[in-house]
Amino acid sequence: MVHHDLAVIGTGSGNTVVDEQFADLDVVHVEATRFGGTCLNVGCIPTKMLAYTAEVAETVRSATRFGVDARIDRIRWADIRDRVFGRFDPIGDSGREHRREHGTVHDGYARFTGPRALAVDLHDGGTAAFTADRIVLADGGRPVVPPPVADSGVPFDTSDTIMRIDELPRHLAVIGGGYIAAEFAHVFGGLGCEVTIVEAADTLLGSMDETIVERFTDAARERFTIHTGRSVETVTGSAGDVRLQLDDGTEIRADRLLVAAGRTPNSDRMDLDRGGVETHDDGRVQVDAHGRTSADGVWALGDIASAHPLKHVANHEADIVRHNLAHPGDLRTFGHELIPAGVFTVPQIGTVGRTEQQCRDEGLDHRVGLHDYADVAYGWAMEDERGFCKVITAPDGTLLGAHLLGPQAPTLVQQLVQAMALGVDARRLTEVQHWIHPALTEVLENALREVSTDGCPPRLGPRTAG
Amino acid sequence: MVHHDLAVIGTGSGNTVVDEQFADLDVVHVEATRFGGTCLNVGCIPTKMLAYTAEVAETVRSATRFGVDARIDRIRWADIRDRVFGRFDPIGDSGREHRREHGTVHDGYARFTGPRALAVDLHDGGTAAFTADRIVLADGGRPVVPPPVADSGVPFDTSDTIMRIDELPRHLAVIGGGYIAAEFAHVFGGLGCEVTIVEAADTLLGSMDETIVERFTDAARERFTIHTGRSVETVTGSAGDVRLQLDDGTEIRADRLLVAAGRTPNSDRMDLDRGGVETHDDGRVQVDAHGRTSADGVWALGDIASAHPLKHVANHEADIVRHNLAHPGDLRTFGHELIPAGVFTVPQIGTVGRTEQQCRDEGLDHRVGLHDYADVAYGWAMEDERGFCKVITAPDGTLLGAHLLGPQAPTLVQQLVQAMALGVDARRLTEVQHWIHPALTEVLENALREVSTDGCPPRLGPRTAG
Repeated sequence: MVHHDLAVIGTGSGNTVVDEQFADLDVVHVEATRFGGTCLNVGCIPTKMLAYTAEVAETVRSATRFGVDARIDRIRWADIRDRVFGRFDPIGDSGREHRREHGTVHDGYARFTGPRALAVDLHDGGTAAFTADRIVLADGGRPVVPPPVADSGVPFDTSDTIMRIDELPRHLAVIGGGYIAAEFAHVFGGLGCEVTIVEAADTLLGSMDETIVERFTDAARERFTIHTGRSVETVTGSAGDVRLQLDDGTEIRADRLLVAAGRTPNSDRMDLDRGGVETHDDGRVQVDAHGRTSADGVWALGDIASAHPLKHVANHEADIVRHNLAHPGDLRTFGHELIPAGVFTVPQIGTVGRTEQQCRDEGLDHRVGLHDYADVAYGWAMEDERGFCKVITAPDGTLLGAHLLGPQAPTLVQQLVQAMALGVDARRLTEVQHWIHPALTEVLENALREVSTDGCPPRLGPRTAG
Repeated sequence: MVHHDLAVIGTGSGNTVVDEQFADLDVVHVEATRFGGTCLNVGCIPTKMLAYTAEVAETVRSATRFGVDARIDRIRWADIRDRVFGRFDPIGDSGREHRREHGTVHDGYARFTGPRALAVDLHDGGTAAFTADRIVLADGGRPVVPPPVADSGVPFDTSDTIMRIDELPRHLAVIGGGYIAAEFAHVFGGLGCEVTIVEAADTLLGSMDETIVERFTDAARERFTIHTGRSVETVTGSAGDVRLQLDDGTEIRADRLLVAAGRTPNSDRMDLDRGGVETHDDGRVQVDAHGRTSADGVWALGDIASAHPLKHVANHEADIVRHNLAHPGDLRTFGHELIPAGVFTVPQIGTVGRTEQQCRDEGLDHRVGLHDYADVAYGWAMEDERGFCKVITAPDGTLLGAHLLGPQAPTLVQQLVQAMALGVDARRLTEVQHWIHPALTEVLENALREVSTDGCPPRLGPRTAG
């Protein structure tokens, strides 16, 4: 039986665990899909390149409202796709090559055969079996495909495949209403496809702050056909002609179907019980605050274990696990408070901390400052009609949450993430700094002023207009 | 002689001084030009509306590099102009009406006739003379017109007039290379005009950080014809056919001439000596840290007095003067440290604190972290090739300055303004918060990581690519 010092299963954030300090170890990396993981190949990064491209197309379409009459002559999907993956596929390939030069790489599905013993069913046939002193599980997750689709035999896409298709569909049907569904609806809608969304809940992005949910769903209804509170009962048809029958009898005909109905950890295909690795009911590998699983010498990080399936969280967990592997006597702990998130749609979203409904549910005494983009000068310049910044604080000004919708929202929210992490209250934020006029950050300043003063009006109106 | 309790000269930030706490006072406001001041009428806000519109046009032009073939059919200048001023002129008018309802408004140039005694040469004829217990000088500044232009008799524009012209020029000549020249070059270049800039210094934006200067000047050279290190010797021609002769013999023919060669305080037209109000050599009214001039009962704020002719500084000074007028026994002081600034061109600029050359000149031991937009995922999505974030720190990590060029730069820099104001060092900034992936804020994170660790590589490359 081959033996390695360290085995890392999954090459997304998992690939960042092993650095120079492990140079003396015999390391094996195992990857079931593309080297580089979800973020690089089928997640954050390519979707953002497509989302920005779709935003460019939307900017062309909306230019006339600014007095710039413009039109789109053609959208070159194959060029768009190849620009993205022509960039990323070589990065993944070179990452894999780097690991091969300094150790072992297996391409296939890893499963436990015993404590700290693994077998990899190799894509090119055969099996690689080995033991390892230490194992890091970073094998991520995959899209969930609900039974009406899975059982239908009708071709469908997920986030794993939709970005590499050969031609834009005329009409894309999307099952799901979370951020992945929202981003792809934006991408393909922006690139000129008709988009129909079917979501079981009554709104899109249902777990977010209620004002985000309300305004985002309104915005989406202007761009797409949306069936909320509906589920898909049957899926029929064939490639290029997919038919969805909803529970209210509605029939949707589309030429492609995207399933974006959630993700599940890849733990179920790893025979974890043979390795003594326990999981939560939802399939996530159980880890303690240091990243240790129930099995001695086995660690886990990222989407296979985390309650926060976000790349910046997985990166952080990889930092912690790397340190802990190298310093067994000085274990660090995961920092899972104040995890922000961005959604790269039009409009964009940035969010951190408690939602307004969470504050109510927890019975927290709280104050809300909400300022519209339309009420700051740069929002005027953008002709924005829907964007806002909501800041939620305790009565003493301690920030509890911040939620933004509109251009630059994921950028803007980071300044409030920083403030919350530093424990700076709302009033001090307004007073301690000069806020550049007329930058879009004035929407932060005004929301903070609203929540930190008793009825003091926001800056723009009275200041410039008297 | 009419007597007022309080006189405010200038209605930009000056118009924000008087609020409810002065309701019992007899107040007079005097405005020499348009009610609302420079920012609202001829400065920050309308220029940003035009700058954003020009950015929309530039986005259309660059769409093809994203795979979206688009074209501009027509640019409706009159609609663009009217969208801007159709919005702002009523705001100024209603501000003026509001002040008239609650006091006195004089439209004309104010000048001192003695201590706390003023006369206003009214635009509609006649003179309004009055005394006041307290006077606030907030009369701003105006563009400087250098002699070769002023003496030529040839028609020209300044920032006061160029935004209200009737037709876009075919070719706009710009004298000056500061931020006002840069913004208008962007506006009219973006809207399809040929633009030629003549600047006496060797670069544009010469006072900014050297990397900003270098990359911005390079970017501008790609969009405009630029003559740096040159001055205008003679101006000839007539409306629609202006000819500039430069000191190297170059002749420039344009159909409009914009003079953007700096601004000067309006103090020279106020007979300040009669009021006992002293000025600096450069014409700025001398004020102490509380906003008091050399004349008893006379205060000053904003561009007429400040070394920082920026609206957010003037707003802050108005806040301080308002407080000090209402609380003579509890004077607050101006906060003139850490004044940030934004420039709304393509590319945008955001800047705060010391430049790299200032650090060298002061002999400050310092470290520099510079990260390109092109090396973070969202910069990839934007296909950005020139944007960067530079962070300058002391050896202990204390932030000394931050300078950004590229999309969202005025938004991004504000997070570092906040950090500097709070005294948080670079390493703590990187560690205290989760940085949303893949938001553009990763360019801040990476610049901070570069300056706060010894050779630790930035996040994106090794993390996602191995």
